Amino acid sequence: MTLTAKMERGDLMAAACPSREVLKHVTSRWGVLVLMALRGETLRFSQLRRRIGGVSERMLAQTLQWLEADGLVKRVAHEVVPPHVDYSLTLLGQEAAEHVAALADWIETSLPVIADHRKAGS
Amino acid sequence: MTLTAKMERGDLMAAACPSREVLKHVTSRWGVLVLMALRGETLRFSQLRRRIGGVSERMLAQTLQWLEADGLVKRVAHEVVPPHVDYSLTLLGQEAAEHVAALADWIETSLPVIADHRKAGS
Repeated sequence: MTLTAKMERGDLMAAACPSREVLKHVTSRWGVLVLMALRGETLRFSQLRRRIGGVSERMLAQTLQWLEADGLVKRVAHEVVPPHVDYSLTLLGQEAAEHVAALADWIETSLPVIADHRKAGS
Repeated sequence: MTLTAKMERGDLMAAACPSREVLKHVTSRWGVLVLMALRGETLRFSQLRRRIGGVSERMLAQTLQWLEADGLVKRVAHEVVPPHVDYSLTLLGQEAAEHVAALADWIETSLPVIADHRKAGS
């Protein structure tokens, strides 16, 4: 049963629902941007941090740990000198990223309409 | 230009990008659940709070204010005795909710795979 169907039955949103934990990671402020940044690219931590902009080292590391534990991000440590670590999306992560990107692109397209609403309301 | 295309060019994620603010609201912990709860339904504040589960009055009110300011949620105050307030999705909100629901349903479907990853990692 999908989350949508559960919600329609009224029992979807039990706070204990395990989907909510994953949804929280995927839709977290930085989770969304990490998934989008890694679409079709393998990046090092510092590259990822620059790409996203405005994220602290600590929050980026935390977000990557969540997504790695969920099986969405793959972390590969290269034992070279100097050592470095690459991040990329797993197949599962690519699927998640497609959905997140569809939402983000919809927002970008709808932004003029949203901006009009904000002006009217302020 | 879509957010995806901007990101690929490398300038997508400027912290000042106005889309990021809306993305933050829509993908906020409670924003996601509010959009899903209001799909195809008009609910009062207390109904919405029960439906979501685990959200404080303060956080639900804040989330509804964000979504209302973005033009995604419509708030209608009925001047009856006792007075009450209804919340529903605007057309724009319905579009946002479809994307959010697609993501949430994907998570629900993928949860067994995600759970396997978590067990393997712990």
